[in-house]
Amino acid sequence: MAPEIQQDGETLPQNNNTYTRDHEALHKTKVTVVGSGNWGSVAAKLIASNTLRLSSFHDEVRMWVFEETLPSGEKLTDAINRNNENVKYLPGIKLGKNVVADPDLDNAVNGANMLVFVTPHQFMEGICKRLVGKIKGDVEAISLIKGMEVKMEGPCMISTLISEQLGINCCVLMGANIANEIALEKFSEATVGYRENRAIAEKWVHLFSTPYFIVTPVQDVEGVELCGTLKNVVAIAAGFVDGLEMGNNTKAAIMRIGLREMKAFSKMLFSSVKDSTFFESCGVADLITTCLGGRNRKVAEAFARSGGKRSFDELEAEMLQGQKLQGVSTAKEVYEVLSHRGWLEFFPLFATVHEICIGSLPPSAIVEHSERKPEL
Amino acid sequence: MAPEIQQDGETLPQNNNTYTRDHEALHKTKVTVVGSGNWGSVAAKLIASNTLRLSSFHDEVRMWVFEETLPSGEKLTDAINRNNENVKYLPGIKLGKNVVADPDLDNAVNGANMLVFVTPHQFMEGICKRLVGKIKGDVEAISLIKGMEVKMEGPCMISTLISEQLGINCCVLMGANIANEIALEKFSEATVGYRENRAIAEKWVHLFSTPYFIVTPVQDVEGVELCGTLKNVVAIAAGFVDGLEMGNNTKAAIMRIGLREMKAFSKMLFSSVKDSTFFESCGVADLITTCLGGRNRKVAEAFARSGGKRSFDELEAEMLQGQKLQGVSTAKEVYEVLSHRGWLEFFPLFATVHEICIGSLPPSAIVEHSERKPEL
Repeated sequence: MAPEIQQDGETLPQNNNTYTRDHEALHKTKVTVVGSGNWGSVAAKLIASNTLRLSSFHDEVRMWVFEETLPSGEKLTDAINRNNENVKYLPGIKLGKNVVADPDLDNAVNGANMLVFVTPHQFMEGICKRLVGKIKGDVEAISLIKGMEVKMEGPCMISTLISEQLGINCCVLMGANIANEIALEKFSEATVGYRENRAIAEKWVHLFSTPYFIVTPVQDVEGVELCGTLKNVVAIAAGFVDGLEMGNNTKAAIMRIGLREMKAFSKMLFSSVKDSTFFESCGVADLITTCLGGRNRKVAEAFARSGGKRSFDELEAEMLQGQKLQGVSTAKEVYEVLSHRGWLEFFPLFATVHEICIGSLPPSAIVEHSERKPEL
Repeated sequence: MAPEIQQDGETLPQNNNTYTRDHEALHKTKVTVVGSGNWGSVAAKLIASNTLRLSSFHDEVRMWVFEETLPSGEKLTDAINRNNENVKYLPGIKLGKNVVADPDLDNAVNGANMLVFVTPHQFMEGICKRLVGKIKGDVEAISLIKGMEVKMEGPCMISTLISEQLGINCCVLMGANIANEIALEKFSEATVGYRENRAIAEKWVHLFSTPYFIVTPVQDVEGVELCGTLKNVVAIAAGFVDGLEMGNNTKAAIMRIGLREMKAFSKMLFSSVKDSTFFESCGVADLITTCLGGRNRKVAEAFARSGGKRSFDELEAEMLQGQKLQGVSTAKEVYEVLSHRGWLEFFPLFATVHEICIGSLPPSAIVEHSERKPEL
């Protein structure tokens, strides 16, 4: 049978012409998701729905899974690939048949043009080391990882870690994103932070956007990424207010002061950070979500209810099955930066959260001290 | 006894020299609060604590009361002056002995240098008419009245009404201010919007500020005043999300989109409006308070739970003892402006709130339609 000449092969999924198919395949973008927890699985689901729809992407989305053996004896990757569902971290949600779980990191990233990093932040340094030399030179990356560390010499941004270790460009995606709600296709928003290349940011936006998940690009990697970390400190403050039963007025005031300090701190660290970023989903919306629900708020509430008599360590162990609260450690890291740079007086809320967490001040200090209004 | 020469008479409260006392009195600022509802009574309490403390003010704060007869047969003004408490609108809270209730508007404003307007907004036009010619020419005014009307030709700002009718300068004070929480001296914040004179704004800040009530001046009367009105439309949207049980993620997204539309609408009406105003208490904090608690949110939640089958009129009658929701009427007014100016497509959330309120769209449209993301 003589091959037909196809003007637009992309619109012909049933094309039987091997030459044309292979040629197209060479130019299609391959996406790999590095990580497969709760949020990673939802990210894979979002992406997989788009790679099927958009002809410029390979249908298949490879998802690197840190292999585990399930109580049934089955490997987690086998279970995911058999059920098309992450039975451990996102049960009940179909990921899309084009999501392929892979326990081998090297194999998972092999040939990928776009890498989505969504692991616990403490794993990233090790993963980057393993990936050196294993990925293409022109790969684009995005980090969905919240909870970078704020070190004395400045924040240790995950996007910077990825860029520097792998020599590639790295965007970030943050926002008011409770994974389980997005998995159920409830309406939500997110923000992509990019450094220079708007076209790449648009490509990420296309890859993640669905009718129920609206993604906006913002040229401000640092601002977007810092929002995702600093909001946890404000959530601790909001939890104290809840525990003290001070009402919605006080809680709103504390959230507003927290947002002001998030903005001021980010801008003092990076002069490029934009005010407008804090109006995006990664800013005010994520702050609202985190201060209404969320672990940090919840444990801080319990801490305040105990009058500060029970320690965060004790409450975390009881309420979070051994997980640690990011807000408490971030507050400590931020305090060290403030103290080291002589900025403590400008950030009464951030400073007070840490001092309450370590027992130097009672929970009620959150309002008494945040009242101090420095001119920034 | 020969009179002593006093270098600084203000620091001598026990001065028995009649001449000096009268001379000082002439130069002290007299404050009158026009209105004595829930928020008006709290405002009088805040102000009265400061006029006692600050030597540049007359101690006495006169409060105009729309006279009523209580069930006991006693006049409301007599009850207030006898108990030092607004037994009808703020029971259980002492206003300060220097608050004097006065049922006679002319007498209440006589000799006042600073007027605080805090009545229901529909009374203001009549009150202004009655005050023409009764007040000093250099009187300074501030409006605490939320809920100006948004007319086709632009918003009918209460501060402008006061300025134009009385020929005086008028600031505004707005914020996340649940009157009963501030009456209990719970920590809160507010924003003073002023036009040009920073010194006058600072004077208002001093008059209202207490250790638990932090006031910030902002040179943006229109932005501050519009926040106080437009947030009620967003609260209706937030109530729909609650009624549909869509979760914190979606609610935060809708609140963020609402804040974006508040900002865009205000800036399209007044080019002088500043982005930074929306980070103040009058912006993001008041929005949070109103979307967490509040009547507008509550009735909108009930409306959505009924699937839009019960009308707002019916629910208002049942839930609010005949009071009307400002959010529903503001949404209608805003819709008329948007429609008249051809701006509907830029404000999907504002437009959709009105269309749901009048039954043209189901409550679920709040997320389906707000998704549309116009470039503003």
